[in-house]
Amino acid sequence: MSDVTAVDPAQFYQSLEQANVIPLWKLAASQQTEPKPDEVGYVWHYKDLLPLLRQSVEVVTLGEGAERRAITFKNPGRRFVGATHSLVASLQMLMPGEIAPAHRHSYSALRFMLSGSGAYTVVEGEKIFMEIGDLVLTPNWKWHDHGHEGKTEPMVWLDGLDFPFVNALRPIFYEEVNAAQPVTRPAGESLNSFGAGTVLSLKNRPTTPFSPLCVYKWQPAYEALKKLQATEQDPFDGTVVEYVNPVTGGHVLATTAAYLQLLKPGMHTKAHRHTSSTVYCVAHGSGHSVINGQRHDWERNDIFVVPTWAWHEHVANDEEVVLFSYNDLPMLEPFGFYREQVFQENDGWQEVESHPVELAN
Amino acid sequence: MSDVTAVDPAQFYQSLEQANVIPLWKLAASQQTEPKPDEVGYVWHYKDLLPLLRQSVEVVTLGEGAERRAITFKNPGRRFVGATHSLVASLQMLMPGEIAPAHRHSYSALRFMLSGSGAYTVVEGEKIFMEIGDLVLTPNWKWHDHGHEGKTEPMVWLDGLDFPFVNALRPIFYEEVNAAQPVTRPAGESLNSFGAGTVLSLKNRPTTPFSPLCVYKWQPAYEALKKLQATEQDPFDGTVVEYVNPVTGGHVLATTAAYLQLLKPGMHTKAHRHTSSTVYCVAHGSGHSVINGQRHDWERNDIFVVPTWAWHEHVANDEEVVLFSYNDLPMLEPFGFYREQVFQENDGWQEVESHPVELAN
Amino acid sequence: MSDVTAVDPAQFYQSLEQANVIPLWKLAASQQTEPKPDEVGYVWHYKDLLPLLRQSVEVVTLGEGAERRAITFKNPGRRFVGATHSLVASLQMLMPGEIAPAHRHSYSALRFMLSGSGAYTVVEGEKIFMEIGDLVLTPNWKWHDHGHEGKTEPMVWLDGLDFPFVNALRPIFYEEVNAAQPVTRPAGESLNSFGAGTVLSLKNRPTTPFSPLCVYKWQPAYEALKKLQATEQDPFDGTVVEYVNPVTGGHVLATTAAYLQLLKPGMHTKAHRHTSSTVYCVAHGSGHSVINGQRHDWERNDIFVVPTWAWHEHVANDEEVVLFSYNDLPMLEPFGFYREQVFQENDGWQEVESHPVELAN
Amino acid sequence: MSDVTAVDPAQFYQSLEQANVIPLWKLAASQQTEPKPDEVGYVWHYKDLLPLLRQSVEVVTLGEGAERRAITFKNPGRRFVGATHSLVASLQMLMPGEIAPAHRHSYSALRFMLSGSGAYTVVEGEKIFMEIGDLVLTPNWKWHDHGHEGKTEPMVWLDGLDFPFVNALRPIFYEEVNAAQPVTRPAGESLNSFGAGTVLSLKNRPTTPFSPLCVYKWQPAYEALKKLQATEQDPFDGTVVEYVNPVTGGHVLATTAAYLQLLKPGMHTKAHRHTSSTVYCVAHGSGHSVINGQRHDWERNDIFVVPTWAWHEHVANDEEVVLFSYNDLPMLEPFGFYREQVFQENDGWQEVESHPVELAN
Repeated sequence: MSDVTAVDPAQFYQSLEQANVIPLWKLAASQQTEPKPDEVGYVWHYKDLLPLLRQSVEVVTLGEGAERRAITFKNPGRRFVGATHSLVASLQMLMPGEIAPAHRHSYSALRFMLSGSGAYTVVEGEKIFMEIGDLVLTPNWKWHDHGHEGKTEPMVWLDGLDFPFVNALRPIFYEEVNAAQPVTRPAGESLNSFGAGTVLSLKNRPTTPFSPLCVYKWQPAYEALKKLQATEQDPFDGTVVEYVNPVTGGHVLATTAAYLQLLKPGMHTKAHRHTSSTVYCVAHGSGHSVINGQRHDWERNDIFVVPTWAWHEHVANDEEVVLFSYNDLPMLEPFGFYREQVFQENDGWQEVESHPVELAN
Repeated sequence: MSDVTAVDPAQFYQSLEQANVIPLWKLAASQQTEPKPDEVGYVWHYKDLLPLLRQSVEVVTLGEGAERRAITFKNPGRRFVGATHSLVASLQMLMPGEIAPAHRHSYSALRFMLSGSGAYTVVEGEKIFMEIGDLVLTPNWKWHDHGHEGKTEPMVWLDGLDFPFVNALRPIFYEEVNAAQPVTRPAGESLNSFGAGTVLSLKNRPTTPFSPLCVYKWQPAYEALKKLQATEQDPFDGTVVEYVNPVTGGHVLATTAAYLQLLKPGMHTKAHRHTSSTVYCVAHGSGHSVINGQRHDWERNDIFVVPTWAWHEHVANDEEVVLFSYNDLPMLEPFGFYREQVFQENDGWQEVESHPVELAN
Repeated sequence: MSDVTAVDPAQFYQSLEQANVIPLWKLAASQQTEPKPDEVGYVWHYKDLLPLLRQSVEVVTLGEGAERRAITFKNPGRRFVGATHSLVASLQMLMPGEIAPAHRHSYSALRFMLSGSGAYTVVEGEKIFMEIGDLVLTPNWKWHDHGHEGKTEPMVWLDGLDFPFVNALRPIFYEEVNAAQPVTRPAGESLNSFGAGTVLSLKNRPTTPFSPLCVYKWQPAYEALKKLQATEQDPFDGTVVEYVNPVTGGHVLATTAAYLQLLKPGMHTKAHRHTSSTVYCVAHGSGHSVINGQRHDWERNDIFVVPTWAWHEHVANDEEVVLFSYNDLPMLEPFGFYREQVFQENDGWQEVESHPVELAN
Repeated sequence: MSDVTAVDPAQFYQSLEQANVIPLWKLAASQQTEPKPDEVGYVWHYKDLLPLLRQSVEVVTLGEGAERRAITFKNPGRRFVGATHSLVASLQMLMPGEIAPAHRHSYSALRFMLSGSGAYTVVEGEKIFMEIGDLVLTPNWKWHDHGHEGKTEPMVWLDGLDFPFVNALRPIFYEEVNAAQPVTRPAGESLNSFGAGTVLSLKNRPTTPFSPLCVYKWQPAYEALKKLQATEQDPFDGTVVEYVNPVTGGHVLATTAAYLQLLKPGMHTKAHRHTSSTVYCVAHGSGHSVINGQRHDWERNDIFVVPTWAWHEHVANDEEVVLFSYNDLPMLEPFGFYREQVFQENDGWQEVESHPVELAN
C-alpha cells in the first residue's frame, strides 16, 4: 500500500468531510488535561432581580401563554439557559390568587423559598404549603402545580432543575393540563410518613431514586445544622448537612443533591475545587466567595454559582452565614467522575485579582 | 448387587450409626410442612419481676463476679436463654453510683428505658444519658459500659440481644476490661450527626450494617408515631414506625429491627402470622394479645413475645397503647425466609381458648 | 431499699426460675472469648460408605415411605444431623429406573456428582442430566425430583444443604407430590441463558438471591481452575474459584457458597482459621488435612469437614488434588460475622498430635 | 404594585438580558413533549472508509503529532464529533510495527476488532492480543497503548467512546507518556481470573463500576449467542446477549453497555423505540434497518446508528446476521430515564419512505 501515488492532503481531508468523519489527529492538539468549562463564577443579586420580577407581573399573565412566571439564569459563559453546565436556577414569583397550572416532566425540580407566604405546591395530589427556607421537591414525572392563598404579598422562590443534564442525554418528556390537579392525598402525608427521618413508616417505603419526602421544613433543618456545628467543622465548608432521602440515605433527587451550610461569623474557608458544580443561595447573612481568583460579594437571597473544577473559598462577614446549595454530584457518582483537589499554595487561600468582576459588572 | 445375601436391617442400622451417618428416610416421617417452634407466646409481668430485681441488689454486687445485674427471660418452651428462638430479652437494673464495666461482643444489643433517670451508657467513647422511652444501641463489637449519676432511684431497662442467633452461627467473640472506658468523643456527637434523620452530616456517613446513631429519643419517636397515625392505619398493626439507620434507611442493627407501634383506645387488630419473631414491651397503656388462641393480658412495662409463625392479634383497653418491639426480620431477609399469612376465618379474629394461659400461671 | 431483711439466695434463685428468668451473672462465668464449637474435624471415607449405600437398596424402596435414599452425616461432636453446625452433607444413591419424587422446601440444596451416569434432576420444570463433577442447584422452594435413565450402575452424589441453619431460624416449609414433576421448560434453557457467564441473556435476568443457573458443568469449571493456577496462588488455599451467580456475581445460594480448589502435587498450605465452616469433597487425588492439630487422611470421593474457627492446613500427596467444597460464608456476611486469623507459629504449620484421630477410629 | 406606570416590554426584556437572565415564558412555546434529537439514523460503509484509512497512512505518522490513526464519525445531524449525542464511534488503523503510545483519560473506550491480526493493547500493564470479533475494554483512567507485531496487513478496529457524555458533564482528565507502557502483569491474567464467568477467582474481585475483564473473545461469545438462540427469541431484537462484568453482572463500562445480537436469515424484527441510543457494527451478514421510516442498507463491518427515541427495525438478508452494538443505557438507568415504546400500527412495521436516504447519499 506504499507504492501508490502520493495522497493530496487537501483532497484527502475534503473526502473525510464528505464521508461524515473527522480525523482524530486534528482534534488531539486541543486535548485538555483537566476540565476547562466555559461557565464562570457569578452572582445574581436579589435586589437587582426582584424589581424585574415585579415588572414581569405587568408583562405576563399566568395561564395566558405563560405557565410559570420565572426568569432563569444564564451563566455569562454560556449561550443557553443554565446557571452551570448541568443545572438551571430560576427565580419564580407567584401573586396572591394565581394558579400555575399542573404539568410534569422528566427533568426534576427543587424549590427553596425566599420571600412571602401563603403559596403551596400540589405534588402528585398532596398539597404542601411553603414557608421561607423550606425545600420542596418535584421529582421526575411527578405532577405539580402552584397556587397562592395569601392576600397581600407575592411569594418568591428559587427553582433548581437538572434540565441541561437531561437535555444533554435527550430523554425530555413533558405533559400538561391547563388547570390545577385535584388534591387526592391527605395534607401532611409526606411529612407524616417520612419527615421524622430516624423513625419511618413501616408500610410505606417507596424504592424510587428520589426522596418520597416532598418538603423539608426550614426550622428542623436549621436546628440540625446548628447542633452539628457543635461537633463538626470542616476547613473547606464550615458545617454542612445534606438533605437526604430518608428511605435510603441517598440524595434528594436522582440527579441533584441539596445541602445546608453554616459559616461562623468571620469564617474564611480554605480553597479547594471539585468536578461537581454548585448553585448557592444565601439564606442568611452576607459575605463573599473567591472563585478562580475573583471576588464575588453576596447577601441574603443572592444566588451564586461555582462551576466545575473552579477553585473556591467562602468568607462570612461578621455575622452567621447560612448557605443553601444544590449540586450535580449525583450525575457524577455512578460513573466514578467525582474528583477533588485542595489548594496547596499561600496557606490554602487564593490570591484575589485586583479588578474584581463584581466592580466591573 | 442384588444376588447378595439379604441385609439384616438391625445390623445395617447399627453400621450406619457407627459410621456417623443417619438414614434420611428415618427422619422423613417427622417432616414438618410449616414452622412448629417449641417457643410459645408468653408475658413477663413487670410487677412480678421488679421485686426480684430489687432483691438481686442484695445478692449480687457489680464488679465482684457480676458484670451486669440482669435477669434474662427464658421462653417456657425453651431449655436455654431466649425470649424467642433468636432473641434474648433481659431486665437490667443499675443502682445510683454503680458502674457496669466496659466490654464488647460480637452479638448486638439494644436497650429500651423503663424506669428511673440519671444513668448513661458510654458507647465507643461517647457518653449517652438515657431517659424513659429512649432506645439505645450497642452494636456488634462496640465497647460499652453503664454508669448511674443519679442519687435516689435505680434505673431499669429492657435489654434486647441477638445472642441465640449468633450462638447458632458460632462466631461468639468477647472482650472485657474491668473498668469504665474513657469518654473520648464529645457529648451529643451521634445525635448531632445523625439525629435529624432527613438532614445528615455530609462528612460523616459510616457504611456499617448497623446504625451509627446510638440513641433514639422517646419524644421525637412518639411524636412521629402520633403524626403518622393521622394518615396511616393498618388492620394488623395499627400504626407502626421503624427506628432506622438514617444513613441507609435500613434496620438499626444488622440482625434486629426495632418498631414503635400505636393502638387507638379499644382497637382490636386482625390476626396474622409471619416467620419473624417479636419481643414486645408495653410503653404505654394496657390490653391483651391473643397468641395462637390464648389470651395474654399486659400493662405498662410488661414484656411479651410472639414466636415464629404464631397467629396473633392485639386488643387495647380503653386507652391509647404504645408498644415498643424488636424482631428478627433482618436475620430472615437476606435469605428470602420471610413469609406472612392473614387469618381468614371468623372475620379475622382467633377463637380464644376458654382456659387461658394467664389464669393458670 | 437496703434496710430490708436479708434476701435468702436459695429462695431467690428459686423465685427466678419460677418466673421463667435466668440470672445473667450466673452465666457470665462460662463466657467464652472466641468460638468453641462442639463440632470437630472429621473424614467420612467413601470406601466405607459405598457398601452401606448398596445395602440400603435392600432395606429401602423409593416411593414406599422413602423419598430419597440418602445417608446424612452426623458430625461426631453433634447429637443431630449436620456435618457442621450449619450445613448438612449426605450421600445419595439412585438406581437405574428409580424416581425420587418431586418436593420443594425452604432449605436449599446443592449436589456434587461422584459416580455413575444417566441420572437427571428436574428443577422447576427443566430436566438436567448430571455427570461426574457437575454441581447442580435446587434453591429455596424450587420443585425438584430425580430420575435415572441409565441401565447398569447406580448414580451417587453428595447433597449439601443449609438445613441446620434454616432450622435454627425456624422457617421450615415443605411440600411434596408423590410423583415426578412435568418437564415444562426446554432442555438446556438454564445453561443457554446463563452458562457462558461473561455474556448473558439480555432479557432474562432473575433478581433472586440465588443463581438462576441450575447446573455448573465439571469440564469448564476445572479448565477455569487450571488457567487461574497459571496466574494466582494463595498460601492458604492454593488456587480457588468460586461458583457464582452469573447475574450478580454473588454466591450460588443465598445461604451457601461453593468453591473448586486446586493443590499442586505435594503442596502443603499454611494454616489459618475463620468463622465460616466448610464441607470438602475430594474430586481428584489424595492427601490429608491437619485440623486443630489432628491429621485426617483423605482420597477421592471422601468428604471431610472443617468446623468454625478450627485451624486447618491441607497437604497434597504427590499428585494434583482437586477439592470441591461448600461453606456457610453467606450466612455470616450480612451481619459482619466473618473473621479470619493466620497461624503465626512454627512457620505457619500446626504441630500434629502423635495419636491421630484417624488411627483410633 | 399594580398602579405603577406601565412597563415597556421591549425595555423590560433588554433589562433581563443585561441581568443575565432569560424569561422562562419565552422558552415554553418551544416545549417539546418527547425527545426530538438532532441526530439521525445513518450508515458508514466500511468499503468507503477503508480507502480513506489507507490514505491516512500517507498523511499521518504515529508519534509525530498523531497519537492514534483514527477517523471519528460525525452524525450528519451534529456539528461536532459523535455518532450519537452521547457516543463516539471511530475506525482506527494500526500498521505492522507501529506503536500508538500510552495515555489514559476519564472517558472510557471499548474496541471491536474488524480486520487483520497481530496487534495488541496493553491495558494497565497487561498485554492483550486482539483477534477479529474480540471486544477489548479500556475503562476510565486505565493506561493503554497499542502495538502491532504482525508483518503484513494493517489491523482495523472500531473504537467506541463515551466522550460526548463525559464532555457534557465536564470532568475530562487526560494524561499521556510518549511511549508504550511497560508490561507488568502476566499475559492472560484478566482472562484467567474472570474469563470463565460462572466460576471466578475467589481472591481477586475488584469493585470497580466497570468490568475487570479486559477482553471478551469472539468465539465463546458467538457460541453463547448460538446456544441462547435455541431457547430465546425476541420479536424486536432476535436473540441478544450482553457482555457483562462477571464480578457484578453489570454493564462492561460504567457508561456503556455492549451487546451481541443474532438475526436468523430473512428475519424482519418488529419496530420499537427507546431513550437509549445505539451504535451497531455488522459482524456477519448483510441486511438493512428502517430508522424513522428511512431504509439503511448495511453489510459486514459497516457501522450504523439508531438515535434516541427513533423507531427502528432490522431486516436480515438470506443469511445469518450478527450485530455487535454498544449503547448508552447505563447513562440513563441511574436516573430513571429509560423508556421504550412499541410501534403499534401496520402490524408493527414502519412504512418506508419512497426516496430512501441511502440512494441520495
